[in-house]
Amino acid sequence: MREQAAAAILAGDLRAGARLMRMLDDREPGATDVLRLLYPHTGRARVIGLTGNPGSGKSTLCSRLVGHYRRQGLKVGVLAVDPSSPFSGGAILGDRIRMMEHAADPGVFIRSLATRGALGGLSRSTSEMVHVMDAMGYDVVLVETVGVGQDEIDIVRTADTTVVVMVPGMGDDIQAIKAGILEIADVFVVNKADADGADRTVSDLRGLQMLLSEMPEWMPPIVRTIASRGEGIDLLGEEILRHGQFLTSSPSRAERERARAAFVVTGLVRETCTRMAHRWLTATADGRDLVAEVADRKRDPYSAADRAMLQAIARPPGTEPRGS
Amino acid sequence: MREQAAAAILAGDLRAGARLMRMLDDREPGATDVLRLLYPHTGRARVIGLTGNPGSGKSTLCSRLVGHYRRQGLKVGVLAVDPSSPFSGGAILGDRIRMMEHAADPGVFIRSLATRGALGGLSRSTSEMVHVMDAMGYDVVLVETVGVGQDEIDIVRTADTTVVVMVPGMGDDIQAIKAGILEIADVFVVNKADADGADRTVSDLRGLQMLLSEMPEWMPPIVRTIASRGEGIDLLGEEILRHGQFLTSSPSRAERERARAAFVVTGLVRETCTRMAHRWLTATADGRDLVAEVADRKRDPYSAADRAMLQAIARPPGTEPRGS
Repeated sequence: MREQAAAAILAGDLRAGARLMRMLDDREPGATDVLRLLYPHTGRARVIGLTGNPGSGKSTLCSRLVGHYRRQGLKVGVLAVDPSSPFSGGAILGDRIRMMEHAADPGVFIRSLATRGALGGLSRSTSEMVHVMDAMGYDVVLVETVGVGQDEIDIVRTADTTVVVMVPGMGDDIQAIKAGILEIADVFVVNKADADGADRTVSDLRGLQMLLSEMPEWMPPIVRTIASRGEGIDLLGEEILRHGQFLTSSPSRAERERARAAFVVTGLVRETCTRMAHRWLTATADGRDLVAEVADRKRDPYSAADRAMLQAIARPPGTEPRGS
Repeated sequence: MREQAAAAILAGDLRAGARLMRMLDDREPGATDVLRLLYPHTGRARVIGLTGNPGSGKSTLCSRLVGHYRRQGLKVGVLAVDPSSPFSGGAILGDRIRMMEHAADPGVFIRSLATRGALGGLSRSTSEMVHVMDAMGYDVVLVETVGVGQDEIDIVRTADTTVVVMVPGMGDDIQAIKAGILEIADVFVVNKADADGADRTVSDLRGLQMLLSEMPEWMPPIVRTIASRGEGIDLLGEEILRHGQFLTSSPSRAERERARAAFVVTGLVRETCTRMAHRWLTATADGRDLVAEVADRKRDPYSAADRAMLQAIARPPGTEPRGS
């Protein structure tokens, strides 16, 4: 059964792919079994992260990039991650409409993803969805995220190339934002490049790059685009390609791959532990008593965490590891 | 020693408070011991979260709220959380300058906080800093965060009242943003209320509130402000106060306190597990081999996580819990 599903997905079957994604969304245990079978066949897609603030026009840019890659004959997967709806599990995605022009194209697969409650898991879901698209044979997978929070950082870490989209005149918090994105961007886009202040935004970015204490192996290029008119898209495509070539030739590539693998595995362990701890604290009598003591300030959260760790998760200290 | 530090902090000693915060920043183990002593004395401060996108003017609003509470004779702590600089550990905080007007006021304590690398921990740090300010005797603690990612959600969960700051004309992602913030906002602010589109933003918000499937116990009010001119601040203060009164009188208050405690303890356990897993995966020979297998697609991340869990963290299944 799971072998059948995996085979269908590897053959690029749309329904099988969509079905697995739905199962992953619903956290059906069988879904992971299929993913395990797919995993050896992943790593072929070029994963491009697109991130930027609301209003930066990155959905339009994303849609233009889809067109760019389609003209090159590549199959494109799009994963729109919307972390703005963490509780509802669903989102009003008005900007998805812009993707409609690609909706009828069988070479384009579009999926959106909302966060699933308070225990995180967005980056896990994202990387799983990317694996599925990768296994289905999409040559390029575009992952679009909003904002620059920790979660988005986690997501872009799973991309090969991260494109950070800026717009002129974002307001006065721009300095703070830039300081953060400087670290995650492989390519900068200044979109709405015909707007007032575009030159300023570009020179601000250049200025911040100059502040780096040492010259990086890869200096992120700054590309001007007007996504609404399709301007600058080919140049952006070229810069993304150039970054891919840099990655392939870089001696640090294997190191980068391993850091990414360690990050993914750590994330899975974290998720398991979080689930175990939360279940114990909320669904057992001992756990609930402990929580009540903390809420009443009769016990500090640190000693409560030590106890939860021991009761819900950890091997008692001094015990030898097994299963090795 | 730690008793001395705790006593000084409880007496409101600024240097002792700042010193503990620095120790917490540097993750010095002794810092947690002091926090354990402080914890029974916390829970008195009113914690107000302020969140909104870059350019929404929330720093100015925050500064105005400080003035508002100072005029009432209250001592105010401000914690500016900047998640935009997750790698550097520091940030260029231009907008901190606006806080300068309060810098000479001994009744105001301002601290900024940047994220600390890839393993999360921002919400832990935030809640610890809030505990310190609370123990120091600040009546109100304002926590200012950027954006609406998962991390920010985690942070606002530690606040008593969450104020979500919007501005007119945020662009077309606004629908998606709103869908998410609807769930976390206790009070909405439409700042720059003299700008074009303010009425539209207010009516959009009202429209989204109407979509709720059931009437909530508390319907978040929508307050118009022009923070740059100080307009609407008193009304905002009143609505925040009204929400506080609602919390105190609400039968679900104890439940809310417990959910928060469970969340904090879960977060601490998650952090410990993440650190243990990451250390094993990156600093032991077995762990590094495992990571290399995943990177080379010879092993899937799920079975690697199972193994990391067993080796680095978990009690083998079937073993009885101890220490109870």
